[in-house]
Amino acid sequence: MAIVPEGMIADLLTRDAAFAAVETVFAAMAAGAAQNFPVVREAMPTEDALYGFKGGVAPGVLGLKAGGYWPHNLDKNGLINHQSTVFLFEPETGRVKAMVGGNYLTALRTAAASSVSIRHLARPDAKVLGMIGAGHQATFQMRAALETHDFEKVIGWNLHPEMLPNLAAVAAEMDIPFEPVDLPGMTQADVIITITSSFAPSLLAEHVSPGTHIACMGTDTIGKQEVEATLLGKATVFCDEVAQSTSLGEAQHAVASGLLKADAITQIGAVINGTHPGRTSADEITLFDGTGVGLQDLAVASSIVDTAVANGTATIVPI
Amino acid sequence: MAIVPEGMIADLLTRDAAFAAVETVFAAMAAGAAQNFPVVREAMPTEDALYGFKGGVAPGVLGLKAGGYWPHNLDKNGLINHQSTVFLFEPETGRVKAMVGGNYLTALRTAAASSVSIRHLARPDAKVLGMIGAGHQATFQMRAALETHDFEKVIGWNLHPEMLPNLAAVAAEMDIPFEPVDLPGMTQADVIITITSSFAPSLLAEHVSPGTHIACMGTDTIGKQEVEATLLGKATVFCDEVAQSTSLGEAQHAVASGLLKADAITQIGAVINGTHPGRTSADEITLFDGTGVGLQDLAVASSIVDTAVANGTATIVPI
Repeated sequence: MAIVPEGMIADLLTRDAAFAAVETVFAAMAAGAAQNFPVVREAMPTEDALYGFKGGVAPGVLGLKAGGYWPHNLDKNGLINHQSTVFLFEPETGRVKAMVGGNYLTALRTAAASSVSIRHLARPDAKVLGMIGAGHQATFQMRAALETHDFEKVIGWNLHPEMLPNLAAVAAEMDIPFEPVDLPGMTQADVIITITSSFAPSLLAEHVSPGTHIACMGTDTIGKQEVEATLLGKATVFCDEVAQSTSLGEAQHAVASGLLKADAITQIGAVINGTHPGRTSADEITLFDGTGVGLQDLAVASSIVDTAVANGTATIVPI
Repeated sequence: MAIVPEGMIADLLTRDAAFAAVETVFAAMAAGAAQNFPVVREAMPTEDALYGFKGGVAPGVLGLKAGGYWPHNLDKNGLINHQSTVFLFEPETGRVKAMVGGNYLTALRTAAASSVSIRHLARPDAKVLGMIGAGHQATFQMRAALETHDFEKVIGWNLHPEMLPNLAAVAAEMDIPFEPVDLPGMTQADVIITITSSFAPSLLAEHVSPGTHIACMGTDTIGKQEVEATLLGKATVFCDEVAQSTSLGEAQHAVASGLLKADAITQIGAVINGTHPGRTSADEITLFDGTGVGLQDLAVASSIVDTAVANGTATIVPI
């Protein structure tokens, strides 16, 4: 089997490769050719940790991401708090095939999902990118969005404004103007990415102009919320997986309050496959609810393994 | 992390070590110090395969066994049909710790479970071991039972009698008399192990003498059944995990038909811990419903890793 340790991932995985892998697997999910397995997520008896598995199967890809969140890791052990590893198996035989460090990979696959939604749902003439959130994940989201679409300006808001220099630094690195704004200032944006861990909405319907594409990337748990539920009632809503979107994604609140019907939510893969038209007017608000599915991890990990085996950097061990 | 490939397990894992690991983790489960996670088990889109994960956490042990059943492996690929791998994580940090080939390990941990039940529930003067089933797993069960208790004779029955030489060969190897019997002949036995993949009962109540201990090891799926349900109504019933026993173990039928109440089933760990007396008379029929839990795999794998790291045979790779 092939082993690709965490430290090698950044050199092996390009944003383009992550984008292609995520776009392909979203398409397969919508075509019924790929399935995510039920998610296991358990509270640990010690360390206040959460641990679990996200598995799935797609053409040529089988396996799981295992790991979780150890909130005291950084303070106690000098390790990052999110810890995950991807294990791949041969779909033809069930034999273990590869192990891939899953931490950096998770950041890139999450950013790739919003980029896929921007490519397929934003107006072609979108010029201003709005960022809600300015943490570590936000910088990945912003970089990927700027590589996906030709924006002219980035505006940003964060509950703690002292973190906005994180976004300004990415903007400077990518040579694009950056401007901090208040939430009403988000009406300037043509595309908005929300990437916070909030439990109350920040972005309200009145902060969003007609024709905007919104990618909600932070809500992955029951109770979390980034945008006002009425916004989902007004928007055409897309997601990675409907069952997750309505249960633990951004759509949970709009569905629960009757503002949005579950069957009005479209898997983004249908747009990729051309079986749904996606955006149909320049005034339409489109919203992508990115909850994060195991197949994103597996597809990106599989791409990494192919690269690492081909260029001889994977460690091959008997098993 | 440490890697212990499948080919090394037979040299590293003794039956004594498997017994100790399984006994300890059963005790921890009954004491509330260990938990098995929900089992994921999915039909694959190709190869008629089943694949999934069994995870759990116990003191010092965290992880999962991943893998499944590829029914065409032997014919198509010359590989065994059951394929599994155990992945262990550090409970303190969530980091991946070890990967262990899971095929031989599964056979030994399953045999260890029936042995633990024999040690704690059979009459000390038990002399005759009865085997129902004569396949690959049956030979593991029989070897472990003969090492656990001082039997004087083995009797065996199998739906396909042409497989009984499998049992005779183990008996010859372990220097104990072996005798094929019909099912009524099982009344001779003091301990009976059932290890078939039957969907209809073989062993009936009339085939079992008072004072017998029965270990039902083959039923791990809804619909499977090895012994007549009335036998569970007459016996004192123990299991590895009550939820599995009543839903997909041998007890599923007796519970469904009202012959046995779920709250009358005792986790064997309670007997190990001394919080349940176990067998209380020489005439009592005791029955252990061994469904197989992820923590058995994890505990045995953890023991293997400790041995392999200590003696320098584990492959250590960066991750």
